[in-house]
Amino acid sequence: MDKKVNIALVGVGYWGPNLLRNFFQLDSVSVLAVCDLKQENLDKMKKFYPAVNFTKNYEDLINNPEIEAIVIATPVHSHFALASKALENNKHVLLEKPMTSTAQEAQRLIDLAKAKNKILMVDHTFLYTGAIKKIKEMIVNNELGDLYYFSSQRINLGLIQEDVNVAWDLAVHDLSIMDYLIGEVPDRVSAIGTAHLGKNKEEMMHIMLRFNHRFSVYIFVSWLSPLKIRQMMIGGSKKMILYDDIEPVEKVKIYDKSVTLNYDTNNMFWPLYREGDTYIPKLDQKEALKTECEHFIDCIINNKQPLTDGAAGLKIVKILEAINLSLEKNGAEVNI
Amino acid sequence: MDKKVNIALVGVGYWGPNLLRNFFQLDSVSVLAVCDLKQENLDKMKKFYPAVNFTKNYEDLINNPEIEAIVIATPVHSHFALASKALENNKHVLLEKPMTSTAQEAQRLIDLAKAKNKILMVDHTFLYTGAIKKIKEMIVNNELGDLYYFSSQRINLGLIQEDVNVAWDLAVHDLSIMDYLIGEVPDRVSAIGTAHLGKNKEEMMHIMLRFNHRFSVYIFVSWLSPLKIRQMMIGGSKKMILYDDIEPVEKVKIYDKSVTLNYDTNNMFWPLYREGDTYIPKLDQKEALKTECEHFIDCIINNKQPLTDGAAGLKIVKILEAINLSLEKNGAEVNI
Amino acid sequence: MDKKVNIALVGVGYWGPNLLRNFFQLDSVSVLAVCDLKQENLDKMKKFYPAVNFTKNYEDLINNPEIEAIVIATPVHSHFALASKALENNKHVLLEKPMTSTAQEAQRLIDLAKAKNKILMVDHTFLYTGAIKKIKEMIVNNELGDLYYFSSQRINLGLIQEDVNVAWDLAVHDLSIMDYLIGEVPDRVSAIGTAHLGKNKEEMMHIMLRFNHRFSVYIFVSWLSPLKIRQMMIGGSKKMILYDDIEPVEKVKIYDKSVTLNYDTNNMFWPLYREGDTYIPKLDQKEALKTECEHFIDCIINNKQPLTDGAAGLKIVKILEAINLSLEKNGAEVNI
Amino acid sequence: MDKKVNIALVGVGYWGPNLLRNFFQLDSVSVLAVCDLKQENLDKMKKFYPAVNFTKNYEDLINNPEIEAIVIATPVHSHFALASKALENNKHVLLEKPMTSTAQEAQRLIDLAKAKNKILMVDHTFLYTGAIKKIKEMIVNNELGDLYYFSSQRINLGLIQEDVNVAWDLAVHDLSIMDYLIGEVPDRVSAIGTAHLGKNKEEMMHIMLRFNHRFSVYIFVSWLSPLKIRQMMIGGSKKMILYDDIEPVEKVKIYDKSVTLNYDTNNMFWPLYREGDTYIPKLDQKEALKTECEHFIDCIINNKQPLTDGAAGLKIVKILEAINLSLEKNGAEVNI
Repeated sequence: MDKKVNIALVGVGYWGPNLLRNFFQLDSVSVLAVCDLKQENLDKMKKFYPAVNFTKNYEDLINNPEIEAIVIATPVHSHFALASKALENNKHVLLEKPMTSTAQEAQRLIDLAKAKNKILMVDHTFLYTGAIKKIKEMIVNNELGDLYYFSSQRINLGLIQEDVNVAWDLAVHDLSIMDYLIGEVPDRVSAIGTAHLGKNKEEMMHIMLRFNHRFSVYIFVSWLSPLKIRQMMIGGSKKMILYDDIEPVEKVKIYDKSVTLNYDTNNMFWPLYREGDTYIPKLDQKEALKTECEHFIDCIINNKQPLTDGAAGLKIVKILEAINLSLEKNGAEVNI
Repeated sequence: MDKKVNIALVGVGYWGPNLLRNFFQLDSVSVLAVCDLKQENLDKMKKFYPAVNFTKNYEDLINNPEIEAIVIATPVHSHFALASKALENNKHVLLEKPMTSTAQEAQRLIDLAKAKNKILMVDHTFLYTGAIKKIKEMIVNNELGDLYYFSSQRINLGLIQEDVNVAWDLAVHDLSIMDYLIGEVPDRVSAIGTAHLGKNKEEMMHIMLRFNHRFSVYIFVSWLSPLKIRQMMIGGSKKMILYDDIEPVEKVKIYDKSVTLNYDTNNMFWPLYREGDTYIPKLDQKEALKTECEHFIDCIINNKQPLTDGAAGLKIVKILEAINLSLEKNGAEVNI
Repeated sequence: MDKKVNIALVGVGYWGPNLLRNFFQLDSVSVLAVCDLKQENLDKMKKFYPAVNFTKNYEDLINNPEIEAIVIATPVHSHFALASKALENNKHVLLEKPMTSTAQEAQRLIDLAKAKNKILMVDHTFLYTGAIKKIKEMIVNNELGDLYYFSSQRINLGLIQEDVNVAWDLAVHDLSIMDYLIGEVPDRVSAIGTAHLGKNKEEMMHIMLRFNHRFSVYIFVSWLSPLKIRQMMIGGSKKMILYDDIEPVEKVKIYDKSVTLNYDTNNMFWPLYREGDTYIPKLDQKEALKTECEHFIDCIINNKQPLTDGAAGLKIVKILEAINLSLEKNGAEVNI
Repeated sequence: MDKKVNIALVGVGYWGPNLLRNFFQLDSVSVLAVCDLKQENLDKMKKFYPAVNFTKNYEDLINNPEIEAIVIATPVHSHFALASKALENNKHVLLEKPMTSTAQEAQRLIDLAKAKNKILMVDHTFLYTGAIKKIKEMIVNNELGDLYYFSSQRINLGLIQEDVNVAWDLAVHDLSIMDYLIGEVPDRVSAIGTAHLGKNKEEMMHIMLRFNHRFSVYIFVSWLSPLKIRQMMIGGSKKMILYDDIEPVEKVKIYDKSVTLNYDTNNMFWPLYREGDTYIPKLDQKEALKTECEHFIDCIINNKQPLTDGAAGLKIVKILEAINLSLEKNGAEVNI
């Protein structure tokens, strides 16, 4: 590992410091510069990373020819401008989720990255966790049988955001997980939500995605819950999975439970319930963000396609746009 | 309490035996007869209640002039026929939930009971629990502040029913609780659901009720969950409540948590989160069904209006009808 | 199963009604009579079992030649007198735990039962649960490897008893389970405890049993805990088991975890921790008491030796006597 | 806060890095040097603290006149030698727990600190948590009534240590908490334990402390549990507390539960159980170690007596010595 990849980071508010810490610890990386509009955010980082250059001017990153890649952890409305400038200046880009404010912006970034032959990756962190990798493996091996549903609850108190509704903040995680696990694009979406607090961005939302077969995705997200819940269920004709991300160790439980319908000659049915053992697999404990940062660097060095590339980011933004449209129509179904 | 009220019961399949056991234990009640179409259901009860008359013929109950009241715990499609016959023959009626298959039927039972001056009560059991009584008390005392939402999850594996969808089986509990706690009729409902198993009755459903002010009710019901969850959250501007009916003792938790928005002169907001102590009130431990059975007898003897009277039952059936209509329209909002 | 076994029950205070309900439901049993010194206890039962004879006089049971077996659920100090009278009069006996107040009494009952050729069984209910049967099966199949320890916690608020300390009330369960699972008699016992409330019977106690090899049993019992805990851990060189009887469904968890020591040439060790999957077996859900009642009747009809016979009861009483002796010696080790 | 306190740290294996991180973040502190015998431990720290001097030679710390205080986070057997050298060279000392290997060593350090007029503090971290501060406050305000018992369970899988038994590693936390909360010195101790793994240091231990009145302390510690449990109960005549350190938020639960005995004229008792509400106080969320590090610096600057001074450390070492003696005597009571 002779040569190090020189990177810079823009945005060290809430999530950026985690990215900074992980990239800083990689032997294959040299963090040259960090940019943020707020001096106080920079000051907090300076003490821990005295050798890094700190700046409030994004141009300093763009104009530095040594910087090969830029990690963008700023609010979503700034993603397109920052990322397109970076790509135009031949820098690889890792973008915080959601990728952009519109599908059109996302498509333009994909085109630009392709034209410049640069890596464009989106930070869909959960796809790098041991839990999701394990569940993906089970689905690939058809251990669940025919899939019935994917149902997720991601609720807590805050952090309420000003410029987006709760789907763009929280459901983006569920959508990216769903997209990875199911590997199919939904047909239609219905979303119902409410803005309780007097601003016009929904703080609670129920989302349902339908596919062109008997499979559905339900997502409940909220910024107004007294409890923090991160619970996902995946039901199949053979087994069912519970993924509870709050659990410190036993995050994934596989229930050997199922229900199927039998029909008699009069077309009357009776349900067959089957309940067997439950199984809690040992998961890879490595920090997902570390895996993801390594993957970004690996893609740069070896010119690989990221698991969470621009196309993956775009699919999620398209669904988020459809969600907003359904909200406007009071929950009516919208084609994606 | 010299005189005993003579009652009979029809339907001792799944829920009926619980009603029978509770009525049997009341000193103010004499259970004269039990009716069921299935001999095996009758046989199971005979050993424990040797002094009771058992019959497969509902007419035996109707024609017995000593029987003053009939408790009906049969499938919903039979409720109207059985209850109207009982009322016409001057017998008080306690009806299992949901009250009837249609709002029209419910209204006719209400009218009939009024004409005959008989008690008509619906078994909305949860309203008689210590937990709901406590929560009602807190709302009446305005301890929660302005109400933001009521969100409920009632999911488990089975028991899938043949003639109704999951809302008519499970959401009826949440709707009756909501109606009692909130005391206001919702304006509109949206419901999205799926029938995964190949029959045409939804086994999973998301329901949202909207009111003519900033308050919403969310209900998630499912027969296809590996986990049994009975969790209700009520959020207000001052406090939030979690009601977890699976918890053996600590069913109600009151969180001194809230979030409000402040606005500055530029109309920018910042959320204020407040988190204080949590409080778990001691609840009345009496079996709700016992309280309810006593209430029915008390209403008969003292000619009182039941807490869960025909009007309460009708309100829920109207909402269930609107839910079915919204389902047909793929989740579009329906006026109630 | 033409002929029914005629039985009678003495003691319907706290636990007796459960035995009565289970025996009453067995097709192979006819419950002829119930005896209790308190009229109110008898009155509570009369309404539910109108065909049974109720009496305050134990002689009525003894003198009834139709009664073949007597179930004794009275306080422990009365066990010997009631059971010996029953055996002398040629009746089979099922005795509540602990078997007797002294080992000497237990031995005399064993001898008497043998002389009279009657069944003598002790109600060690837990041995008939699906959980313990599953754990026993795993130990027999050597799935845990070498056993390191058995550690149990059985604590709650009350019910404080007047005539015995907490070990005779609660630890008796752990001791009977341990005896069944391990199948070896401990050598020595240490017990430390305190009587906090001003009477001279310990309400909290720690008990340790030692065997003639590297295996230990720890038991913590208390009547003074705000929480109810029923938690047992069994550790082996290959796997570890948690049995949590408070859990409604997932009572037994099998951890593929272990720790072993490796030594280098300097006799320095380093521990090897191994952590794999966790597994929750589906358990037989049948009520343990029902299984036990059936077993008692089966032993009578077919002249079998009960799983929890007098010898099993005696072993536990011997340990309880040694515990009391260690308590008197402030926790010093006592040989059993 | 013009002048900064210059400190150095020795030992950055398991716990030291946490101390280093906290001291490094304090504005009132300048970390001049870090010492460790292992190069790999130093290398891990170098990347994060490039401005700090790293050395394998403790003399470099001692001989540096700018270093005012030394934080010692090495194995216990080295504590006395390192701390006495630091004190002799006029440096303040913060010592990892347990303070020393023997009470004699602890006493000599106390004497030395006094002679040199230097701060000597022991890292009993839990005393600086919001949870323990809250419980202390309740006991001081007599909210629990007369104290009955303090019962603690601190069990997990590993980390098995070579040179001490599990009490010196884990029970030291419970003992220091108990000492702080109760404020009284126990009279006698009994300890029973076993070394299952073939070395001669106990991996599981039950400890009981007795006082000169009706109050007892029970501690169960283990390195061999498949589950990690950190659960402490404190029972009083008015209320009971559960402190569960595994809970992320609801660490302290206060149960308005109690049991008292009433006596009639025949000196027969009947227990009175009282069960009221449960209350979960909001706790100070600040990292305990940060509070502790600030306290150490405050004591240095303002010449204050630390809350966890040498005398507090000595008391715990004395109890640990008595525990070892009781173990040798197979659990016999030992005076402290």
